[in-house]
Amino acid sequence: MGERPQLQSVRTAVIGATGYSGQELLHYLARHPVFKLCLVTSRQNAGQPLSKFVHGLPRELGALTFVDSAADSDLATQADLFFLAVPHGTAAPYVVALREAGKTVVDLSADFRTTDPEIYKEFYDHDHPAPELLPEAVYGIPEIHRARLKSTKLIAAPGCFPTSIILPLAPFLKAGLIEPDSIVINSLSGVSGAGRKVELRLLFGEVNDNMYAYSVPKHRHLGEIEQELSLAAGQKTTVTFVPHLIPIHRGMLSTITAKLTRPQTDAELQAVLQEAYGQEPFVDLLKAPELPESRQVANSNRIQMTARVDARTNRLVLFSAIDNLGKGNASQAIQAANLACGLDEKAGLE
Amino acid sequence: MGERPQLQSVRTAVIGATGYSGQELLHYLARHPVFKLCLVTSRQNAGQPLSKFVHGLPRELGALTFVDSAADSDLATQADLFFLAVPHGTAAPYVVALREAGKTVVDLSADFRTTDPEIYKEFYDHDHPAPELLPEAVYGIPEIHRARLKSTKLIAAPGCFPTSIILPLAPFLKAGLIEPDSIVINSLSGVSGAGRKVELRLLFGEVNDNMYAYSVPKHRHLGEIEQELSLAAGQKTTVTFVPHLIPIHRGMLSTITAKLTRPQTDAELQAVLQEAYGQEPFVDLLKAPELPESRQVANSNRIQMTARVDARTNRLVLFSAIDNLGKGNASQAIQAANLACGLDEKAGLE
Amino acid sequence: MGERPQLQSVRTAVIGATGYSGQELLHYLARHPVFKLCLVTSRQNAGQPLSKFVHGLPRELGALTFVDSAADSDLATQADLFFLAVPHGTAAPYVVALREAGKTVVDLSADFRTTDPEIYKEFYDHDHPAPELLPEAVYGIPEIHRARLKSTKLIAAPGCFPTSIILPLAPFLKAGLIEPDSIVINSLSGVSGAGRKVELRLLFGEVNDNMYAYSVPKHRHLGEIEQELSLAAGQKTTVTFVPHLIPIHRGMLSTITAKLTRPQTDAELQAVLQEAYGQEPFVDLLKAPELPESRQVANSNRIQMTARVDARTNRLVLFSAIDNLGKGNASQAIQAANLACGLDEKAGLE
Amino acid sequence: MGERPQLQSVRTAVIGATGYSGQELLHYLARHPVFKLCLVTSRQNAGQPLSKFVHGLPRELGALTFVDSAADSDLATQADLFFLAVPHGTAAPYVVALREAGKTVVDLSADFRTTDPEIYKEFYDHDHPAPELLPEAVYGIPEIHRARLKSTKLIAAPGCFPTSIILPLAPFLKAGLIEPDSIVINSLSGVSGAGRKVELRLLFGEVNDNMYAYSVPKHRHLGEIEQELSLAAGQKTTVTFVPHLIPIHRGMLSTITAKLTRPQTDAELQAVLQEAYGQEPFVDLLKAPELPESRQVANSNRIQMTARVDARTNRLVLFSAIDNLGKGNASQAIQAANLACGLDEKAGLE
Repeated sequence: MGERPQLQSVRTAVIGATGYSGQELLHYLARHPVFKLCLVTSRQNAGQPLSKFVHGLPRELGALTFVDSAADSDLATQADLFFLAVPHGTAAPYVVALREAGKTVVDLSADFRTTDPEIYKEFYDHDHPAPELLPEAVYGIPEIHRARLKSTKLIAAPGCFPTSIILPLAPFLKAGLIEPDSIVINSLSGVSGAGRKVELRLLFGEVNDNMYAYSVPKHRHLGEIEQELSLAAGQKTTVTFVPHLIPIHRGMLSTITAKLTRPQTDAELQAVLQEAYGQEPFVDLLKAPELPESRQVANSNRIQMTARVDARTNRLVLFSAIDNLGKGNASQAIQAANLACGLDEKAGLE
Repeated sequence: MGERPQLQSVRTAVIGATGYSGQELLHYLARHPVFKLCLVTSRQNAGQPLSKFVHGLPRELGALTFVDSAADSDLATQADLFFLAVPHGTAAPYVVALREAGKTVVDLSADFRTTDPEIYKEFYDHDHPAPELLPEAVYGIPEIHRARLKSTKLIAAPGCFPTSIILPLAPFLKAGLIEPDSIVINSLSGVSGAGRKVELRLLFGEVNDNMYAYSVPKHRHLGEIEQELSLAAGQKTTVTFVPHLIPIHRGMLSTITAKLTRPQTDAELQAVLQEAYGQEPFVDLLKAPELPESRQVANSNRIQMTARVDARTNRLVLFSAIDNLGKGNASQAIQAANLACGLDEKAGLE
Repeated sequence: MGERPQLQSVRTAVIGATGYSGQELLHYLARHPVFKLCLVTSRQNAGQPLSKFVHGLPRELGALTFVDSAADSDLATQADLFFLAVPHGTAAPYVVALREAGKTVVDLSADFRTTDPEIYKEFYDHDHPAPELLPEAVYGIPEIHRARLKSTKLIAAPGCFPTSIILPLAPFLKAGLIEPDSIVINSLSGVSGAGRKVELRLLFGEVNDNMYAYSVPKHRHLGEIEQELSLAAGQKTTVTFVPHLIPIHRGMLSTITAKLTRPQTDAELQAVLQEAYGQEPFVDLLKAPELPESRQVANSNRIQMTARVDARTNRLVLFSAIDNLGKGNASQAIQAANLACGLDEKAGLE
Repeated sequence: MGERPQLQSVRTAVIGATGYSGQELLHYLARHPVFKLCLVTSRQNAGQPLSKFVHGLPRELGALTFVDSAADSDLATQADLFFLAVPHGTAAPYVVALREAGKTVVDLSADFRTTDPEIYKEFYDHDHPAPELLPEAVYGIPEIHRARLKSTKLIAAPGCFPTSIILPLAPFLKAGLIEPDSIVINSLSGVSGAGRKVELRLLFGEVNDNMYAYSVPKHRHLGEIEQELSLAAGQKTTVTFVPHLIPIHRGMLSTITAKLTRPQTDAELQAVLQEAYGQEPFVDLLKAPELPESRQVANSNRIQMTARVDARTNRLVLFSAIDNLGKGNASQAIQAANLACGLDEKAGLE
């Protein structure tokens, strides 16, 4: 429950809203009881109504027209809460301007996810554009950083792979039940994870009836994954991570294995998850023999997860499923924003 | 190259030919220069022409009608080469009768894949139905067991997962380059791997836009996988194996990780594969940055594979792609049968 | 707007809720402000919680367990509004019992769609099981029968094909702008339209990468289609209707052609639709060059439609798109029930 | 059967081979007994091996490198048979140069499909670039123009929609059994029909789970469709044609309706097709209750078709299925080229 009255209204802007993330955000905002969309920007679609690009919005929302606002314009005066759905590397100037004006910012790009500018540089190949703001950015997984999210005005919304990986792994690292250097992660991603880019490899004819691994051994999300796992483990943690592209639009599945530090039963493993997430509104803990399915969490802010022991090899096997555009992106951004704005964390998400 | 003349004709039968494996087998046999299909059996479709169930066959082949032949009938007199595409556990009686009559048998079921009847019992929950025949069965991966396949009359055609896993892993285990107890395998399978069973979970509405892991931690194929990996490693090898179902019809991708026993470069790892398979007609070794794609080997007997080092964690990462109905099933069965019949191994497969 | 206060609560039951229609209904009911689900029946899943079969429901709703209630039980005492999501031919006994008890019934089966029992017999091959109730049944397309729906207690929810066909055609027939005997309808349906039946033809392996026409020339929905078109035309109207199965889960597209009685422009045709549906909350009228797309109305109660002239042949071409499980089924059933219960027609549907 | 000896070798070139058509052509040529690929051109991929773009080719063929040859180069000296797989409007200069040099040309673009330059201009919005060559071009449907194809050196390979429409309709128009002005055609196309263009609308995320009609009322293929239908009818024939995009990669289905000039039975209608195509090697005539399925003709040069009467409306309903890249494109081009080169029409196509 929020500490402030629920019926307030927060003027909300979405910067860059024609990609899959942006569209998803608009759908969630359309049914949010407090965040009231009043500004949507898009360079290429300026002057056009939202309804032309995003279907299924209520008519009044669909009638809103895109404006072309640069970061240095009077953007900050037009709303109080800003969601940035712009490409990696282009969010920082907006963040600088908006934070200077005291606004609450949820950055869906990767720009503020790694607290250490060196890690940013390692994974993004250039100096961080605004390192002075990194200390105030909070990594936006509410189940992990809830307290800090309640008192920040700069949320770095996590990537989809990290969300599906950090949540199931963190409790086992914290409990010292797995060997940190034994972690192997295989993730399967729907195509929307790659964004709405007009590229040959993303054509229906190239994706359909096909699947493949990519970005090995060093996908860009690895920096934030290892940052959060190291935090949970209390020691520097390096992992092997292999993402795969699958011919579905939305959905993400992660299968994670690690050596157990001592033998465990399925029940003991489940108890660890129950202890960590049993009260979480958006975490579904499955019992054996059930395993997560991507479709069961599609169009939602939920994450399904479960743990199993592979007794023959003394390994923990963790499974999780999210909607890469939901809990892996837009809806989790709103969940975090709810906290930052003092609202019920579930507002607009059920 | 075969030692006997290429233009001979071998009377060929397919027992149980209305599943996806059986259909695929018929398509490959239709263009085989030596194996001449003369008998096709099916209990439920007896009396009906093949063309009603299997499309795209040449007209004369499509006109062949299914007969209902039990194992104890005069089946053995009607052909010289028998492909058994019947469910696991039901092949053994056919094998006994046909081997008694001196016929060459390619069993696509799991009945003769594990040489140790105890392992069979562990994974299939009942005593092996014909343990006396196990010693003469040869596991049908030509790239691994070519010499023995040339002199056997009983081929145990491997499962699709095992094919995609054993082939890339074996050279590294033989070379002592990886720690056998560190192997983690994640495989993605197209739906046809589950066969043409009329089950709720295989409906389009359940499979489409969905993906999930299953059969953990002990999929039935694990017995044959570990048997062959142990053989390559020269020591008992136990692995973690997680299969996943993906919404495509045909295709299989395996991603395999293992700790390196000593640091390696990508080039050194590739050299190991090159040494093992450089001359193999059906193995495509990809060079970085290329990674296997399931569609590139669809409808073929080829396997794509490549190796990469994850230097940050000192792990080998192996990737392979096959058509689960081709190299993972029907076409590899023909490749093995070519060897057993003294033909060019590539006959009918290009 | 409803005439009665909006905040009332209506005890609601769903009879037969494990098919795709039933599941969809539960999702819409979960967010309905007035219809409160209190009873869900299923013969085969009695005793099991909803959450096991229908994912994404709020926890309290998911915890409801299926009961096994026959039509002759005390079913009628347990709710005030009943949605019947049972197979065609099995709804009538429930309807008889429930109407006798004075309850409001929304029958999603075909049992009460055709007002003439002779037409029922022609299309369903047996006598109508309760012809005495046919006069009180109202065909549940609110945009066509709104007034009668407000005062009935027996709603015959329409089929998906009929909804996508009757709505765009009716205004042109009423206006006498097309020749009734020239109508040709081609419809494309997602697989969920066939229900969640465990049949070979509905396996992923049979549906994926495939498409075909079926049920020609006399699909069972033709009876209700021609009944409603005849009503609009003021004369007996017989049409050619060809449905096709397409490898998508949800979605329906209809393309309808008819000879114009006099030349028309695109603008004149659009004006006819505007006049008929311009004020309808769930009808999206597209302007040229836009044409309906099934995905744009997925998971909604909306229908997209547009009209074009083919001047070279003097034909009207009509296009419509709906979600076959939404406006073509569950959500339209709720729209009609809202009217019958005196609520805002849009309740629970935005 | 060809009149010249079968064992000859024809030096064959493919101009522009990286689109879906070109790739398909290469696959068929790879197994052709006479056409020997010796030249492949591509502006953007010059110097690169085929194997990088087209998978599954035999190794020697895959090793061929693309060259960048303009129409005015010495192209004509390098082969005797040229397949042009270049965009519409860009084939004409090649045709002019190659025909001047006496070479046989199969143009897969639309440039020479319409014999009347006025119709070309109507549908392609500019003057025909080489009208003097139109008289010698033969429209490449062998079942319709076999005699003329045997003696031409310029084949205009038909579009996919036209192939699926003209073949089933022509016999009924010739027999005077249908009213030419009553023809309505609805066609469903797989995405590869749009080519391998990097456009937003062809992204997996836009095509998957979606379907829609497009290019109404005047798709560019309508010119060649009406030309051939008029020829069959012996009178100017104008039709309504609505193409639809479906989320499959390859496949095309056409459903055609027309008023019968006199009542017919299913058997009589089937007899018309049997009379026309009963001896055709690539035409599969289905008997009731079977209807064409796109997957059954995938990866083949076959067309499935059948005819049904809709007695209630006195209409003929025709159904056809082809592979839009096979009989609708590459394989039919080879079938026609076989005729032009005096070979067995079936060479390389079974």
